[in-house]
Amino acid sequence: MNTIQDYISQNKDRFISELLDLLRIPSVSADSKYKADVVRAAEFVKSSLEKAGADLVEICTTPGHPIVYGEKMIDPKLPTVLVYGHYDVQPPDPMDLWDSPPFEPVIKNEKIYARGACDDKGQVFMHIKAFELMMKTNSLPCNVRFMIEGEEEVGSTNLGNWIRENKNRLKGDVILISDTSIIANDIPSIDVGLRGLSYVEVAVTGPNRDLHSGVYGGAVANPIQILCEMIAKMKDENNHITIPGFYGDVIDLSKAERDELNKAPFDIEEYKTDLKIDAVYGEKGYTVLEQTGVRPTFELNGIWGGYIGEGAKTVLPSKAFAKISMRLVPNQSSDKITKLFSDYFVSIAPPGVKVVVTPHHGGEPVVTPTDSVAYKAASRAMEETFGKKPIPTRGGGSIPIVALFEKELGLKSVLMGFGLDSDLIHSPNEHFGIFNFTKGIETIPLFFKYYVEMNK
Amino acid sequence: MNTIQDYISQNKDRFISELLDLLRIPSVSADSKYKADVVRAAEFVKSSLEKAGADLVEICTTPGHPIVYGEKMIDPKLPTVLVYGHYDVQPPDPMDLWDSPPFEPVIKNEKIYARGACDDKGQVFMHIKAFELMMKTNSLPCNVRFMIEGEEEVGSTNLGNWIRENKNRLKGDVILISDTSIIANDIPSIDVGLRGLSYVEVAVTGPNRDLHSGVYGGAVANPIQILCEMIAKMKDENNHITIPGFYGDVIDLSKAERDELNKAPFDIEEYKTDLKIDAVYGEKGYTVLEQTGVRPTFELNGIWGGYIGEGAKTVLPSKAFAKISMRLVPNQSSDKITKLFSDYFVSIAPPGVKVVVTPHHGGEPVVTPTDSVAYKAASRAMEETFGKKPIPTRGGGSIPIVALFEKELGLKSVLMGFGLDSDLIHSPNEHFGIFNFTKGIETIPLFFKYYVEMNK
Repeated sequence: MNTIQDYISQNKDRFISELLDLLRIPSVSADSKYKADVVRAAEFVKSSLEKAGADLVEICTTPGHPIVYGEKMIDPKLPTVLVYGHYDVQPPDPMDLWDSPPFEPVIKNEKIYARGACDDKGQVFMHIKAFELMMKTNSLPCNVRFMIEGEEEVGSTNLGNWIRENKNRLKGDVILISDTSIIANDIPSIDVGLRGLSYVEVAVTGPNRDLHSGVYGGAVANPIQILCEMIAKMKDENNHITIPGFYGDVIDLSKAERDELNKAPFDIEEYKTDLKIDAVYGEKGYTVLEQTGVRPTFELNGIWGGYIGEGAKTVLPSKAFAKISMRLVPNQSSDKITKLFSDYFVSIAPPGVKVVVTPHHGGEPVVTPTDSVAYKAASRAMEETFGKKPIPTRGGGSIPIVALFEKELGLKSVLMGFGLDSDLIHSPNEHFGIFNFTKGIETIPLFFKYYVEMNK
Repeated sequence: MNTIQDYISQNKDRFISELLDLLRIPSVSADSKYKADVVRAAEFVKSSLEKAGADLVEICTTPGHPIVYGEKMIDPKLPTVLVYGHYDVQPPDPMDLWDSPPFEPVIKNEKIYARGACDDKGQVFMHIKAFELMMKTNSLPCNVRFMIEGEEEVGSTNLGNWIRENKNRLKGDVILISDTSIIANDIPSIDVGLRGLSYVEVAVTGPNRDLHSGVYGGAVANPIQILCEMIAKMKDENNHITIPGFYGDVIDLSKAERDELNKAPFDIEEYKTDLKIDAVYGEKGYTVLEQTGVRPTFELNGIWGGYIGEGAKTVLPSKAFAKISMRLVPNQSSDKITKLFSDYFVSIAPPGVKVVVTPHHGGEPVVTPTDSVAYKAASRAMEETFGKKPIPTRGGGSIPIVALFEKELGLKSVLMGFGLDSDLIHSPNEHFGIFNFTKGIETIPLFFKYYVEMNK
């Protein structure tokens, strides 16, 4: 065993125990009732960074949730790695599908079960512990700055302004982010593309009050029916999205690029068995890997209206609502797509209803280079710890901040994540393998090492 | 003033005060958490009937909520009127739209505001007080039996069996029901047709768990999207219902019948202004009065799925649900329509999802005769108290029990209601005018008087 492995094996139990303490804090950024918990999580991150050896650690307030900053500048002539992550988590709903409470972490089958275990508290904590390791073993080879925010799950609303106001102390050479997945524990991979996001909420209002469906039904537009009809119109029979101009900026991949992408290991039968579905159901003419990685999507995230309690109520409701998100691919713009959606959605509303579209948050799609020093350092680090060269993949998810870093700081990101697609992030029973957690702590110092060596 | 008016004016304040006590009991039959309150409401009705002078008053238990029975048999040779009503109420949701709490009744502008004020506690209480009046003034001209149930808002599930088991003590000549509306306080009317009801809940299941919409979206059927597409397919561009065979048993009205129906006072501009809508939106080729009175309908009563909390969550949910009710017209059968719906709905489900249809409850449509002694007695009673002959109307709502009485007891019903369509029954801020409440108490004894006289 080398120094890194020694340190991890001697401290692993403490690392996990500390992570469980962080996971116990319900830092749900989307729901204002957890506001104090979000602050507690920020304080926990601050304290962890300080204990690990960071300087100038600060909880930076914003109009929303705070950002935790910390740094260790050992030599201005050496490169500086900016580590980004987030300590906020998705809402835990639906609560009744959790096998154990989302904020009472448990370890089962070598996995940590809790909301945020993988996304992103577990992966942020890998960085803090890898930093601690480098500090305690005197092996930190360059400068490092941490930016751990509390609004990633709600669109990083205030991070942009904070970055613009703090450009001086955010000087560096590369952004390192662990908020993505590998293909499998024996198939390492690095995300080189992330989709953008446009997230909207729509409200359809019919009559000014809830009505008796027997007295008014049949003559007055039912906002649920209308909302359903409008949503149905958003896709055609081939599951193409019908919003005029939606695909206008999409750059089609070449046959060679598609072939390369489809080389990633994927078994459709396993996929269907895992999800207990009898068929996949995507855009015609594309493979599942293409549908989830390089094609834009239109997904309903929530819908509600009328009576949703037990039993029957014969109401013709006044309002119906839906939450809709669109994943965007490189060259699409979040603001433009939000506007195209909004214009089209309002235009197809029939008489008798009013429609309001409220944009929630967005993020721009990105492609990261595979020929950069940072990518090569990440690849070499993973190859060493996994024993296999990682595969470059295009991830379906969105980390809007990657495009923001590029725009505001002129820095590229490396997406060296250690989760698995099966970790149930955003779902009940989210978990993170202890294998993955420790593999991350082992790999990160090697990234630092090779990044500095290759930059020489 | 005559005896009836004297008694009412001397006791009106007490009548209202007693009704408010009944309205304070949240007897919501659809939600099991109110089970004890439903029983309390039954006990209140029992006690009220006893105090008014009824004999053999009994709370009859059923597998669901109880039925209150009471009678006053003064002479077996005289006719017997069976009074039906219900003491259960609709759920109060959405709670935040009530100006005052639904079970803390208040009087404003000569109206009583509370859940159940009109539907049907207020109207049931008119009967109990009219009975009290006839007893105290020695003017009860015939026998009377009361059947006040607690499951009307959930489909009268157990009333059928109870009627079959109690045929002997339910012998009578006519059913008198006050659970409908008049056109306006200066335009009395009597419902002569009621639509039937088929009420179903549907569940669409996609993947076996909630998924991250960025990782799986685009390749896996989203149950909300699919549910919306399926609901959209239930109506065509003319708002005709597309379920094969749905209209098969509908008997089209003759031109003369349609002309007669459309003579009822109706102002489309007032209707739109009242509901704050810019257009009505019904089945092409029919007027609003036809759409809401004599045509079958298909209405969404509730829909839910995915994340419906504050903020944004990028989830591709496992399930989506809807509550759907269809109003049926004479000659349509509730069971048949439920089956036609279910077969069609399941048949249009695409691959990748599973669909389950659960029937909630149903009721058969009815038309009541206008040439019966009972109708004529009701018409004469209302003409006397309102000063105008009431207009026969076809109501859009459903009282499934009317068809049941006809089938099991061979008795016709008279639907002599005193509410207004604007009373917001089933909605927040339900109310009942004190004018209407007292007008009912005044009219009911006259119905008894003329019914007995005309039967001689």
